[in-house]
Amino acid sequence: MHRYRSHTCAALNKSDVGQTARLSGWVHRVRDHGGVLFIDLRDHYGMTQVVADPDSPAFATAEKVRGEWVIRIDGKVRARSEDTVNKNMATGEIELYAEEIEVLSAAKELPVPVFGEPDYPEDVRLKYRFLDLRRETLHANIVKRTKIVASMRSAMADAGFGEYSTPILTASSPEGARDFLVPSRIHQGKFYALPQAPQQYKQLLMVAGFDRYFQIAPCFRDEDPRADRLPGEFYQLDVEMSFVTQEDVWETMEPVMTGIFEKFADGKPVTRKWPRIPYDEAIRKYGSDKPDLRNPIVMEAVTEHFAGSGFKVFAGMIEKNPKVEVWAIPAKTGGSRAFCDRMNSWAQGQGQPGLGYIFWRKEGETLDGAGPLAKNIGPERTEAIRAQLGLDEGDACFFVAGEPSKFYKFAGEARTRVGDELGLTDKDRFELCWIVDFPFYEWLEDEKKVDFSHNPFSMPQGGLDALENQDPLTIKAYQYDAVCNGYEIASGSIRNQLPEVMVKAFEITGKSAADVEEQFGGLYRAFQYGAPPHGGCAFGIDRIVMLLAGAKTVREVALFPMNQQAQDLLMGGPSEAEPAQLRELGLRLMPKKKD
Amino acid sequence: MHRYRSHTCAALNKSDVGQTARLSGWVHRVRDHGGVLFIDLRDHYGMTQVVADPDSPAFATAEKVRGEWVIRIDGKVRARSEDTVNKNMATGEIELYAEEIEVLSAAKELPVPVFGEPDYPEDVRLKYRFLDLRRETLHANIVKRTKIVASMRSAMADAGFGEYSTPILTASSPEGARDFLVPSRIHQGKFYALPQAPQQYKQLLMVAGFDRYFQIAPCFRDEDPRADRLPGEFYQLDVEMSFVTQEDVWETMEPVMTGIFEKFADGKPVTRKWPRIPYDEAIRKYGSDKPDLRNPIVMEAVTEHFAGSGFKVFAGMIEKNPKVEVWAIPAKTGGSRAFCDRMNSWAQGQGQPGLGYIFWRKEGETLDGAGPLAKNIGPERTEAIRAQLGLDEGDACFFVAGEPSKFYKFAGEARTRVGDELGLTDKDRFELCWIVDFPFYEWLEDEKKVDFSHNPFSMPQGGLDALENQDPLTIKAYQYDAVCNGYEIASGSIRNQLPEVMVKAFEITGKSAADVEEQFGGLYRAFQYGAPPHGGCAFGIDRIVMLLAGAKTVREVALFPMNQQAQDLLMGGPSEAEPAQLRELGLRLMPKKKD
Repeated sequence: MHRYRSHTCAALNKSDVGQTARLSGWVHRVRDHGGVLFIDLRDHYGMTQVVADPDSPAFATAEKVRGEWVIRIDGKVRARSEDTVNKNMATGEIELYAEEIEVLSAAKELPVPVFGEPDYPEDVRLKYRFLDLRRETLHANIVKRTKIVASMRSAMADAGFGEYSTPILTASSPEGARDFLVPSRIHQGKFYALPQAPQQYKQLLMVAGFDRYFQIAPCFRDEDPRADRLPGEFYQLDVEMSFVTQEDVWETMEPVMTGIFEKFADGKPVTRKWPRIPYDEAIRKYGSDKPDLRNPIVMEAVTEHFAGSGFKVFAGMIEKNPKVEVWAIPAKTGGSRAFCDRMNSWAQGQGQPGLGYIFWRKEGETLDGAGPLAKNIGPERTEAIRAQLGLDEGDACFFVAGEPSKFYKFAGEARTRVGDELGLTDKDRFELCWIVDFPFYEWLEDEKKVDFSHNPFSMPQGGLDALENQDPLTIKAYQYDAVCNGYEIASGSIRNQLPEVMVKAFEITGKSAADVEEQFGGLYRAFQYGAPPHGGCAFGIDRIVMLLAGAKTVREVALFPMNQQAQDLLMGGPSEAEPAQLRELGLRLMPKKKD
Repeated sequence: MHRYRSHTCAALNKSDVGQTARLSGWVHRVRDHGGVLFIDLRDHYGMTQVVADPDSPAFATAEKVRGEWVIRIDGKVRARSEDTVNKNMATGEIELYAEEIEVLSAAKELPVPVFGEPDYPEDVRLKYRFLDLRRETLHANIVKRTKIVASMRSAMADAGFGEYSTPILTASSPEGARDFLVPSRIHQGKFYALPQAPQQYKQLLMVAGFDRYFQIAPCFRDEDPRADRLPGEFYQLDVEMSFVTQEDVWETMEPVMTGIFEKFADGKPVTRKWPRIPYDEAIRKYGSDKPDLRNPIVMEAVTEHFAGSGFKVFAGMIEKNPKVEVWAIPAKTGGSRAFCDRMNSWAQGQGQPGLGYIFWRKEGETLDGAGPLAKNIGPERTEAIRAQLGLDEGDACFFVAGEPSKFYKFAGEARTRVGDELGLTDKDRFELCWIVDFPFYEWLEDEKKVDFSHNPFSMPQGGLDALENQDPLTIKAYQYDAVCNGYEIASGSIRNQLPEVMVKAFEITGKSAADVEEQFGGLYRAFQYGAPPHGGCAFGIDRIVMLLAGAKTVREVALFPMNQQAQDLLMGGPSEAEPAQLRELGLRLMPKKKD
């Protein structure tokens, strides 16, 4: 028989009754039922109930073992009696009668319990991550993560992609977030940088004549801690393709990701054909470029109904400024004064002056728009609004007014709140979409200048002609995001691979060809030697796994995450370096600041 | 029709004749045959011949294009005439008659030619890696690499393993090679380290209750440049299993790796059942712990035949020192004085006093051992040696004498040289084996102390008992290597997961429990809380791909390698940091040393 086990702790069942078996695993818990000991033995695969009574030669050892000891047990497989069968367990119809127990490794008193999963401070959990990971939920999350990532790999391979690993020790690049630097010993005074993403390398790969690249890529950003990000490092499914339009990227990645979601959604519905929503439309309809489409509320402009109306606040704004609009947030089933007032209070809590509303109720036979706004604008305009939005008895509608660029975020938050409060948002589904046609440039009010909205290496729609002849702020980019349930899960673009278009695009932001070369040296140089049209995207793996595992934080789906202060409490990183190490690197520490 | 292509450059064949097709790719070369232009158009997938004659509306553009321009071509698929069919090309039976050509991206004059693959200095190649990668051989190597790695992943999944990503920003550990450090901005004066290997994390994963881990793991070592290593970062197939003996590791990995080798060996034979050769035996038979088993030569001790013999040099050494042995390197077909003298000269070139030999030839009917040694020891002893080694007419044998620990490396080199020179070593095969039972400790002559031979986290054979009662230098470890054609391609062990055995093992090297805790804090702490017996190994991916691609250096199978001075010439790493970056990190540069 094998030194440690003939079966895993999930393998024995009724067909093994009468057999001798050897199991190894952790003592999940020990129960004493009137002198008979029941040990739940746990391994990676499952759990098996072990029994030892005073007649068993293993009884003395069984009495000694404690939670989380690692033991080997030899015994006879017995059927459980009818009333003790556990249908929820793969091994629930049998138990192992212990004949010999060997302690493979004892455990000290546990700083974090495994059984029962009680709440414990995160820092203790992280310091003893090897215990925390034994908990059923965390263990299941991590196993799910490995399966999701493996499925991504095989789906990408099936779609004709190859996985290419790009360098991790690379050159610092001035764009985007802050780089982690790695001092060079051989070239003292110089530094490598860890890649924020393999962006430039994957584009170089296309220029190098490869096609259909993907990578489960580690990415590194030295950012200040944020609740929804893993500190330090995170993973993305990085994708790039040559000779493609943006439609090719969408049509390639949609079935891949829909397949992944369907496989791991535990039966929840998943969008098959992802809507492609222009950025401007997403802002107007949902108040967000990452709309939660589980929420059925679609906002609409109702400016005309307030222009020149008796509601002087809105009417006055509209008259004074042609940019002003009034947006309606229809709230089906929200038609009670109590709910409308609650929303109004919430808006005030958000720093808004309030949230105007109308709600509809039956007065005898007639549908009546109620609330102060309805009174001010009168029944005709109220009815026009109701008709436009398709609302009915028992429904309500909220209104926000001003310049959309200034209020759309709040409007989007109100839409989310209405959807949640009224239970309109179906939480048990995955709604996926593409947000497309992002603006290429934006106006930086503080600096009074035009800058790139997203990234400078995207291709502007209309190309050189648009850059030369169009108001920069109206130019769209071949740039898109994928969104799931209100989370951005991917971002991508068709790249600008034409040196002259690149230089012109930078020129509009006040930068020179020399700046382009400094920031994108390798890539810019490469584009001079025959660069194919190419594009791609990158999906955020941690967030996708978090969504599919129903976890609350990305740390619950990462194996050995750092804490929110970017410390590895388990291994003790970061730590002080030896003086000799610093000497080798040609570095000195600055004197410590006083706290 | 698609914006860029209806087919790839490998797709068109006879069945498409008469069709209109659209291709995009790079101009591999342009030939002018009496006013008719032939363009070889290349993409990731293959090559298609395009024709443009003066009648074609695309002719003017075709005249303009140069090597490595990226173009789109619309045209008619035509059958080639019998005499121009190229059977070696997938598209060799057709050509595309160009009707329209669009230049997607022009190319400046090339600093490194793609067509024809002439020799160029490596630093220029690396600076223009995106051009170098377009060469057929390098492109094929990289594609092969992605396929090998994908096959490793799927074979590991089929064997029941899950892939777990371990952290890349981690804590410095004092063992092994030099760490790359990453200064922390949030914790000024402290440093993360990049992992030399995920060793501690994979072991923690086992302690955390997972089983059958693997990872295509990036590893980082700040070593001085070596020809056979990638500077900075390299990849290993990292494996760990719980509740296993070393036989389980071998029996699991053998079919996985044999399968990989067979799949990518281009028909060359691959060892199915890997011999398991104890370290001591490998040293005695092959003079190396990474024997090239394609070489059929097996060395044998022939000390007794020289003890008290007329060859006074050897006889005297044997008499004076009981540790002295004489090893024979049998050299079938090497039986000529010319060859034996050449080997002798080679040995002298290696700093040896010479290489004694005997060779056998027929003198009339009798087999005669010739050479000075044979004369000195006489015919009887010469015949005894011949009989022991199974040599015959036309064969030779070389002899080395001394303490084996001092000469075995040279003996191994001589064995390799004989095998190569005589053509005994069949280069067209892959011979795989396990080297097992490595010594746990070694004697450091300089420091006059016992230290770990390999790594301190392996389990000593015999456990605590051996550590307490055995001469440390005779203790073996559950430690093994995998070897292919003379290269170490993997290393592994069963781990020491018992804290008291760990402390005792360190004690023998003069270290305390506190030292253990300092060096292996996270792991040592974890072992206190129920650690399963576990073990694994790590296969060097770069080297395996190099072997299977028949490449000469690991840089030829890596996508964007640094040069031998650990510089990324393409992206310009390492580079100087901005003063603001250094301030944020709390670092100052030491003044430069004068050269």
